Amino acid sequence: MRTFEEIKTLIEVGLGRRPCDRKLAGVQLVNVWSGEIYETDIYIYGKRVVSIDPEAKLEAKETVDCHGLFALPGLVDTHMHFETTMLSPEALATVVVPRGTTTLCADLMEIANVAGEAGLREMLKSASRLPCRLLIEVSSRVPTAPGLETTGAVLDAEAVAQIMNWENSISLGELDPSKILFVKDEYLHKIEDTLKKRKIINGHAIGRMGQELNVYASAGISDDHECVTAEEALARLRCGMSVLVREGSSERNLDALISGAIAGHMELDNFLFCTDDKHIDDVRREGHINYNVNRSIELGLTPMQAIKAATVNAAKHFRYEDEWGSIAPGRLADILLVRDIRHIEPESVYFEGRLVASGGALTSDCPVSDYPDWIRHTVHLKNPITAASFEKAAKDPTENEARVRVINTIDRQIINTASVETLPVTGGLIQNDPARDIIKIAVVERYGKTGGVGVGFLKGFGLKRGAMAFSTSHDHHNIVCVGTNDADMAAAVNEVARISGGLSAACGGKVTASMALPLGGLMSDLPADEVAVQLSKMNAAAEALGCTATAPYMALSFISLPTVPELGLTDLGLVDVLAHELIEVEI
Amino acid sequence: MRTFEEIKTLIEVGLGRRPCDRKLAGVQLVNVWSGEIYETDIYIYGKRVVSIDPEAKLEAKETVDCHGLFALPGLVDTHMHFETTMLSPEALATVVVPRGTTTLCADLMEIANVAGEAGLREMLKSASRLPCRLLIEVSSRVPTAPGLETTGAVLDAEAVAQIMNWENSISLGELDPSKILFVKDEYLHKIEDTLKKRKIINGHAIGRMGQELNVYASAGISDDHECVTAEEALARLRCGMSVLVREGSSERNLDALISGAIAGHMELDNFLFCTDDKHIDDVRREGHINYNVNRSIELGLTPMQAIKAATVNAAKHFRYEDEWGSIAPGRLADILLVRDIRHIEPESVYFEGRLVASGGALTSDCPVSDYPDWIRHTVHLKNPITAASFEKAAKDPTENEARVRVINTIDRQIINTASVETLPVTGGLIQNDPARDIIKIAVVERYGKTGGVGVGFLKGFGLKRGAMAFSTSHDHHNIVCVGTNDADMAAAVNEVARISGGLSAACGGKVTASMALPLGGLMSDLPADEVAVQLSKMNAAAEALGCTATAPYMALSFISLPTVPELGLTDLGLVDVLAHELIEVEI
Repeated sequence: MRTFEEIKTLIEVGLGRRPCDRKLAGVQLVNVWSGEIYETDIYIYGKRVVSIDPEAKLEAKETVDCHGLFALPGLVDTHMHFETTMLSPEALATVVVPRGTTTLCADLMEIANVAGEAGLREMLKSASRLPCRLLIEVSSRVPTAPGLETTGAVLDAEAVAQIMNWENSISLGELDPSKILFVKDEYLHKIEDTLKKRKIINGHAIGRMGQELNVYASAGISDDHECVTAEEALARLRCGMSVLVREGSSERNLDALISGAIAGHMELDNFLFCTDDKHIDDVRREGHINYNVNRSIELGLTPMQAIKAATVNAAKHFRYEDEWGSIAPGRLADILLVRDIRHIEPESVYFEGRLVASGGALTSDCPVSDYPDWIRHTVHLKNPITAASFEKAAKDPTENEARVRVINTIDRQIINTASVETLPVTGGLIQNDPARDIIKIAVVERYGKTGGVGVGFLKGFGLKRGAMAFSTSHDHHNIVCVGTNDADMAAAVNEVARISGGLSAACGGKVTASMALPLGGLMSDLPADEVAVQLSKMNAAAEALGCTATAPYMALSFISLPTVPELGLTDLGLVDVLAHELIEVEI
Repeated sequence: MRTFEEIKTLIEVGLGRRPCDRKLAGVQLVNVWSGEIYETDIYIYGKRVVSIDPEAKLEAKETVDCHGLFALPGLVDTHMHFETTMLSPEALATVVVPRGTTTLCADLMEIANVAGEAGLREMLKSASRLPCRLLIEVSSRVPTAPGLETTGAVLDAEAVAQIMNWENSISLGELDPSKILFVKDEYLHKIEDTLKKRKIINGHAIGRMGQELNVYASAGISDDHECVTAEEALARLRCGMSVLVREGSSERNLDALISGAIAGHMELDNFLFCTDDKHIDDVRREGHINYNVNRSIELGLTPMQAIKAATVNAAKHFRYEDEWGSIAPGRLADILLVRDIRHIEPESVYFEGRLVASGGALTSDCPVSDYPDWIRHTVHLKNPITAASFEKAAKDPTENEARVRVINTIDRQIINTASVETLPVTGGLIQNDPARDIIKIAVVERYGKTGGVGVGFLKGFGLKRGAMAFSTSHDHHNIVCVGTNDADMAAAVNEVARISGGLSAACGGKVTASMALPLGGLMSDLPADEVAVQLSKMNAAAEALGCTATAPYMALSFISLPTVPELGLTDLGLVDVLAHELIEVEI
C-alpha cells in the first residue's frame, strides 16, 4: 500500500516539481478502464504511473521511444501453486515474467502442509526480490483430509487469521465444498474472519451444480477455477461468482469456457484467467497467461476483452484496482510493450516501474535465495525403511488367495476407479500380479511423527520392474512409492529420504536415478533450465522401468490423493473418498 | 458483515434442515451477475438470500406468488447528503425507499461541520431502525475552507481515521482537488489511512481535466460525481476513475452523460448513479434512483445496463459485492418487485429480507428517533444581534460614495460572479441600493465561539423588502442572512436563533414566517409531508418580499459558499475563492 511519502512525491512529480524517471513516448495505450486504445505518453516515477495525459509534457530522466508498440497492463495469474512446478519462486519468475505475467496469486498449500506458517514466511522472504508480485491466497485446507492423513503442519482458524493479516494475503484459498456441505465449524470461522477483513474467498467447486452450488455460494465464496463446461461457468455467474478460466498443463478448460461464453453472451467482466498450474516446458512452448489471452482472441474475444480478463478484471475481483491491473495515474507501473495486440509476446516487461524483462528473458538474474537449513531438511523417517515395511499380510495366512480393493489409475486424469481383484497369497503375504499390471503402492509418513506406512495395490500404471518414489504426494506430501517388489520400493524411498526429498527410481536393489527437491521436499533450488533437464531424465528412468503413464512422476504425485474419487491412499491406509473414511484393503 | 452463526444457519437452511422464511415463487429474476433475466424462485432466510436455484424445492414459511413480476436488486444512491433535503434519515426513508432505493451512501459533511463525530454518531443511531442501508462516506473536508470560516467542529486526520473504522464507513468522502493540487499533508494522511484500510476515496473534480485530473487521480481517487459533459466522463474513465452519474434537484447531468456514453461506446461497468441531492417534491414527481434507471433506459441503455449501474456496479465499486447489490446466494435480500422492467416503479420493496414498502408507501411507520437535547440546540449567538451588527463603515466616513466588491448571484447556479459597484455612504456607513437590486448579505457565527459577523453586498437576488435568514449555509452552516435593511436582518437572524436553527423571513421589524430545523440547525424532526408544506410556505414568504430567485432558501444556502467561484462570504468576511484568501469589501 502507498505510504504518505509515496503519495506526496507522486503528486509533486505530477505537478512538475521533480522530473519523472521514465517516459514511454508515443505508445498505443491499452486503456482497460475506458476500453480504448489510443496514442499517448506514459510517465513513470519510482514504482508508479504519474500520468497518461498526452498533453502532460513532463520532464523525464529517460525517454523510451514506443512508437509502433502497444502498452498493456502486466498480466495476472489469479490462481496457482508454484510448488507443483518444482521450481522456487525465483526460478519460476525467470520463465513467466518474460511472458508478461507480473502478478502471481499463489495458494502455497503444498509448502504449508509441509512446513506451516514458518514455511510460508520462508517462501515469502524472496517475494521482495522477485521481478513480479507474489500475492497469497491463504490456504484454507491444511490438512486437506483431516483425520485421514498425517501432515507436517496444520493451519487452524487462528493461524489462518494471523496469516490473513499479512499485507500480501489477498484471499482465503480454494475452499473445499465438502467443508461447507458438511458444515465444518472450523472452516466457517475462517470464512467469517476473512470476510470481516474485507478479503475474498476463492472457490474450488469441482462439478457442483444446482442447490449444492447455491449452498456453497451462500457461504460467501467469490469464485471458482474448476469450471470445465460453459454450463458450469454460467451456473457460477448466476450464483454471483466469478469464473477463473484455467489453462494449465493438466487442466485445459479455456476453449470450452471462452467459446461457451461467446456463444452464450455471458458477462465477460466476471471472467478472469489462471494456470493452476503450468509446467516450464509448456510455458516455454506456448506461453503463460499471455497464452490464455492469445487463445481467447483466436476463439473470438476482442483483444480488449481478453486483456481485461487478464488484468483489471482480476484487480477488481481481488479489490486492488487502485494498486495494479491497469495503466492509470497512481497505479503500480506493471507495463508490457508488445507489437501485435492480437498475439501478446512482450518485447519489454516493466514491473513496478523497472524494466525487468526484454526480448523474452529477464534483464538481470534472479538467483535463488539462501533458504535456511531447516526447510532444506524436512524429510525425517521415524523408523528405518526396509523391504519388510511394504509387506501386506493376508487376513487368513492359510489361504493362497485374497480379495483386495485396487486403485485403478486413468492416464491423464487425477480421478481413479475402484475394483476388487483376487491376488495370490504366499507365506501369508498378499503378492503383486505384474502380469495383470497390479503392483504395490505405498505412502510413507516422512515428518518423523508416526513412521506409518500405508500399503495398497494399484492397477494400470504400467510399471514392469523396479520402483519409483516421490516426496510430492498431494496434499500431505509424505513419500509415495510404487513398485513391482518390496526391496526396490525400500531403495527408492530411502533415496528420497537421503536427498532430503525429491524423485527417485530403483531397480535390482539399486537406485537408477534421483532428483533432489530440497525446498520442503517439493521444490528444487536450481535454475529452471536445470530442473527441466533433470525432470526429463527422471521421466526417462521411469520409462526404462516400463512405466506407460504420461508424465509418470506428476501422475504419481496425484495417484493417491485422498480427496479425489474413488480411492485414496495415505500413511494411515486406504481411503474411501466419498465416504471420507479409512477402509481395509482386503475384503 | 456476516457472523459465524449467520453463515452456519444459512448453510443449514440451504441444506433443508430448517425452513426458509419466504419464497418469491415464479419471479422473473434480473440476474446482474450473469446478465440474464429468467424465471426462478428466490428463497430468503433472515436477512439473506438462501438460493435462486429453480430446482431447489425448499420448504418456506411463506410463499409469495410473483408470476408476472420482475425481481431486481435494491437500488443504490452512491453519493448524497441527506441534510440538504432538510429531512431526518427517517423522514427521507419514507420517500425514497418506496421508490426502490435501499442503500444510501451518505457524506454527512453538514452535520459533521456542525457537530463533528458526536453528530455523526447521533445520526447513525437511527441507522439500525431504518428500512434501508445507511453507509458513510467519511467527510474529508470538515472544515471545507480552513482558515476562512468558523465551524462547529473539525475532523482532523486522526478523527477521520477513527470514524473510518466504523463498520458502515465505506469511503473517504468527496476530496477537494485543491487539497491535492496544493499538496496539503493533512489530507494526504487521510488518503494513506483510507487506502491502508482498503476502502476507497470519493472524488469531487469539478471541471478538472488534463494533467490536473491526472495528478488528482494519481493520489488514489476512485470516482467523480461532478461530471457535466461526456468528455469529462471519458477523461475520468481514462484515469481509472468510475463515473457517478448525478441526477438531483439542482444538478442534472444524466442526459448528457448517458447519451454521451452510448454515443462513445464507453465501458458502462464503470458507471454508477447518485442524486447529490434530490428534494422530496422532485422525488415525489419523478422518482429517486429509479428515475436515473428509467431515464437511462429511455435514452437507450438496456434495462440490464441501467439496473447494473444502480446495483452491482455500485457494490463492486465500494467492494461490497459479497454483501449487497445483487440477488444471489448469501447476499442481503434487498429486492424490488416490479411489473415493467423498462419503467421501475416497485410494487414491493424487500430490505434485508423484510417487506418494507408496497404500493408506493412504507409498510410501517418510520418514526423520527429521540434525538438528544444537545443536537436540538446547536445555535448559540455569542453577542446579541441588533441592526448595528450589520452596519458596514466606509473607509473614509467623509466620502458620500464607496466602491465595493459585490457578489452577483446567477439564478439556478451555485457559482457567482464578482463586480465592483459604487454605493452611497451615509453617516460613514455604506448603504444598500435596492433600486439596482444590491442588498446586504451577512454571515453570523452561530456556534458561540467568536460572535463574528461577515457583511457584504449581493446583487441579483431580487429581494424588494425585509430580510431572509437560514442556518444552513454551506459548508460551515453559520446563519446566512440577506436583507434590504439592518433591522429586518436582525429580526430574521434572531428568529433563526430562537427556533434553534431553521429558516426565517422578516419585514417591518417583524417575523413574517419561520420554519424550525432543530436537528443540528439543518434538519427537521417532522415527517416528510409536513416539511414539504412548511418549505413551500417559506418560499411563499420569500416571494412576498419580492424575492425572484428560484427556490429562494436553497439558493440562500449556497449563495455565500467560500469554495465556489468567484466570491464567498463567511463569518470572517469576504472570500476570494480562487486565491483562497479573505479580502476587503471596499476597494
